[in-house]
Amino acid sequence: MPTHFGPADGPRQWPGDAVADPKRSKRTLSVAASFLTDASALEQHLPEGFTLAGEPAVTVEFHHMTDIDWLAGRGYTMIWVTWPATFKGSRDRATGKFLAVVWENLTDAIITGRDEIGHPKLYADIEEARRLDGVQICTAGWRGFRFLELEVSQLHDAETNQQGPASDGNLMLKYKPRTGAWGEADLCQVTLTPASDPDRHVEQRQAGVGTVRFHKATWADLPTMHHVVNALAALPVIEARGGTVTLSRGGKSYRDQRVLV
Amino acid sequence: MPTHFGPADGPRQWPGDAVADPKRSKRTLSVAASFLTDASALEQHLPEGFTLAGEPAVTVEFHHMTDIDWLAGRGYTMIWVTWPATFKGSRDRATGKFLAVVWENLTDAIITGRDEIGHPKLYADIEEARRLDGVQICTAGWRGFRFLELEVSQLHDAETNQQGPASDGNLMLKYKPRTGAWGEADLCQVTLTPASDPDRHVEQRQAGVGTVRFHKATWADLPTMHHVVNALAALPVIEARGGTVTLSRGGKSYRDQRVLV
Amino acid sequence: MPTHFGPADGPRQWPGDAVADPKRSKRTLSVAASFLTDASALEQHLPEGFTLAGEPAVTVEFHHMTDIDWLAGRGYTMIWVTWPATFKGSRDRATGKFLAVVWENLTDAIITGRDEIGHPKLYADIEEARRLDGVQICTAGWRGFRFLELEVSQLHDAETNQQGPASDGNLMLKYKPRTGAWGEADLCQVTLTPASDPDRHVEQRQAGVGTVRFHKATWADLPTMHHVVNALAALPVIEARGGTVTLSRGGKSYRDQRVLV
Amino acid sequence: MPTHFGPADGPRQWPGDAVADPKRSKRTLSVAASFLTDASALEQHLPEGFTLAGEPAVTVEFHHMTDIDWLAGRGYTMIWVTWPATFKGSRDRATGKFLAVVWENLTDAIITGRDEIGHPKLYADIEEARRLDGVQICTAGWRGFRFLELEVSQLHDAETNQQGPASDGNLMLKYKPRTGAWGEADLCQVTLTPASDPDRHVEQRQAGVGTVRFHKATWADLPTMHHVVNALAALPVIEARGGTVTLSRGGKSYRDQRVLV
Repeated sequence: MPTHFGPADGPRQWPGDAVADPKRSKRTLSVAASFLTDASALEQHLPEGFTLAGEPAVTVEFHHMTDIDWLAGRGYTMIWVTWPATFKGSRDRATGKFLAVVWENLTDAIITGRDEIGHPKLYADIEEARRLDGVQICTAGWRGFRFLELEVSQLHDAETNQQGPASDGNLMLKYKPRTGAWGEADLCQVTLTPASDPDRHVEQRQAGVGTVRFHKATWADLPTMHHVVNALAALPVIEARGGTVTLSRGGKSYRDQRVLV
Repeated sequence: MPTHFGPADGPRQWPGDAVADPKRSKRTLSVAASFLTDASALEQHLPEGFTLAGEPAVTVEFHHMTDIDWLAGRGYTMIWVTWPATFKGSRDRATGKFLAVVWENLTDAIITGRDEIGHPKLYADIEEARRLDGVQICTAGWRGFRFLELEVSQLHDAETNQQGPASDGNLMLKYKPRTGAWGEADLCQVTLTPASDPDRHVEQRQAGVGTVRFHKATWADLPTMHHVVNALAALPVIEARGGTVTLSRGGKSYRDQRVLV
Repeated sequence: MPTHFGPADGPRQWPGDAVADPKRSKRTLSVAASFLTDASALEQHLPEGFTLAGEPAVTVEFHHMTDIDWLAGRGYTMIWVTWPATFKGSRDRATGKFLAVVWENLTDAIITGRDEIGHPKLYADIEEARRLDGVQICTAGWRGFRFLELEVSQLHDAETNQQGPASDGNLMLKYKPRTGAWGEADLCQVTLTPASDPDRHVEQRQAGVGTVRFHKATWADLPTMHHVVNALAALPVIEARGGTVTLSRGGKSYRDQRVLV
Repeated sequence: MPTHFGPADGPRQWPGDAVADPKRSKRTLSVAASFLTDASALEQHLPEGFTLAGEPAVTVEFHHMTDIDWLAGRGYTMIWVTWPATFKGSRDRATGKFLAVVWENLTDAIITGRDEIGHPKLYADIEEARRLDGVQICTAGWRGFRFLELEVSQLHDAETNQQGPASDGNLMLKYKPRTGAWGEADLCQVTLTPASDPDRHVEQRQAGVGTVRFHKATWADLPTMHHVVNALAALPVIEARGGTVTLSRGGKSYRDQRVLV
């Protein structure tokens, strides 16, 4: 949209003269931290058809990306908030990470990601990742209100081919409101990003102690997303579950994203 | 989206403790300029069901808004590109301005505008409006590439209650791609913003000579929207059609947006 | 600097083809709030030769400026922190407001202001002024760390020609370190901005209740100015002293700035 | 400045609890390109006491720095414009690169660099470095006006310990205007950054074909620095002299900067 000028180029639609390079593009510095919370609190934020899968641990990941082919070599940052869940539909069944919200600092990627693959993306100002006295620090805000801080400290080298729990991939809810019928939906469907990402290559991984803090906001601080930040800020941190810092190269364009029913 | 945290507040959904004030919010400085172009060139960029209505004049409008109630008093800027068109559907028929593309510098407004009312919004960096030696100047770019310049000069006071041509309102195409079926649509519908806006009050209006320039871009300059900018840059400027600078207060929230069939 | 390309244009040096207009340029929205603090705390932050003059009240002012002639119609914002002081030099004596620190969001103005007239200017990200439920709100930060919040509430119309206390003007310390002799100064002099500003015209003034909050910072939050912010954050707020919101037009270029000895 | 709150921390003044690490901090991606120009054109922009040294080649360098210790791990970018020159003073004589102008995108570094070591720093918006189809691309602008583009193409690996021409270091002019005596100087001195930088370690170097373009600006495009950009844009490009892309780590804090007389 606008479509009457022809299709927009982007990660899943390539211009004639440009060359995608999924083995080299993009380069990503990922900083992640997890914490154990209360299962019943998390369940309140799961859409219909979903149940928690395993222990109620929330993971927050900052992905600082550069060398992105579809941006002609530019970069941007995304933040993922996930927890483990199972979806049981009328036909499909999948277990993986439920992608509760995504923040990004590039509107172009937010627009195509929401529309084409149903990622629940919002905008945030995200500071560059920085390391101070061995601690990796990430922060995000909106118009001067900092709502998220994540740190990973006591870093030590870890296995690059770390095997996570078996997963069908990332699960999320694509939702499109109906124009003129406020509160109704034109579209409400579960979509899946399959776990496989053969072109992604981890170059370095470190593990350590992770901490995550969401800061409670008033409506005036964050007029369009205080409810999201406050829901996350209200989750009790029962126990920190560690953090990682990962350098990787390559990755898929999510053309394998599909709808579950 | 994300919806599982509850509905997002915005122009059409108000938090419990905030008060909308459509007679005072928002305050808008609008700068507009028009030019006559070639009818056949414009027709190439009209969706199915639309035809040109009257002379093929393109209007570009910068709306610099402050004091926006749903943003807790903050502001942002939007740019509209329109030309006159008639839509004939299977049931409905309407004539007004076809809203070909919108650029805004606030992602939150882009997201809700695209999803809720089908405005074809993209992101741009937009400089503050400025006046130099009596000329009102507006510019827009993306990551350092300036793609649009608009100026209105030789300004003189004009009637505030200027009557435009009879119009049913603004017409546009809401389009949502289908996940997993690349190139197909989940939704493709014409929406209308009715012309009536009773709470909007024009405080001052000036008219003058307008000029508009779109700058041709390579894919690498504007990887996600070079095709939009280049389509507009390729329109021949046959004749300038004047410009205006308007100060207004108040305005509707587009809850009257509706689908035409 | 660089000077070998010729003199830089700016507020006090005009290009051949541009016209300064001190009666119309600039337009300023000023938001100010004061508080009574402890005299001995303030005295610690007065340079040699200065003493407090009258009650120890700190005033913080946000000046949101637009339509600036020397910026070809653009704008920027400055923040002033002052308290009343008297300077007694070997020859000169003056009483007015001691300008303890200035923050601005335009580097070009910071550079020329520091070098040409000795304003103690630092950089801050400053949000647009906004009004919510009748409260005027201003904030400033640096790289996502908000260090200053100012609000003026319960606003009512006030006399535009409000007479302040008799003043010789604004006093400040121009200081230039010596290259190669770390800790020594090449220049350390008191400068005065005389109070008179005949081209400045107040269009509207409102008065109300003001609050000011400086937020304590670590070195890592504000690596180059934590000491300034923390000094101000440590001042006790003994009593709020009111706030104002003022719209004005015009003003001088500070060419009357002079050195006191 | 302000100094009455105590000394400001920065590259040459360290807070008690922080640790400088000149072997690891900072990490720099440098992109440089040179061109041969007309000697007489360059000589017009040399201050008194300077003469061209060797062939009249202008070099433009973008230094994208991250992991900066004195910024608590943050980064910024600087752009250097130099050409070879010899300074003959009443006592001192030195040959090296004359640093004609510096642009940076961090005001804090601009302020301390100008005042403490006399670097002729101005502000620019600088895009992140990016590589597209093997070409390294750098651009800079101000408020949406792009004034500088630099590219290095046909890159191939080069010797990391490349020996440049014998040099005493970088030479520049520190200039401070006199308050109240417009057009006069309080300080005008030549400063030298000695060439030695033992903690800097080049990790990777590539060489290729370089191109540099400065875009001519009106006063209204760049009100405070059109004269600098236009002087550089007016230099004829007689022959491209190659470009490099260099990754390095570590580097000095310029505490060895000294005044030449």
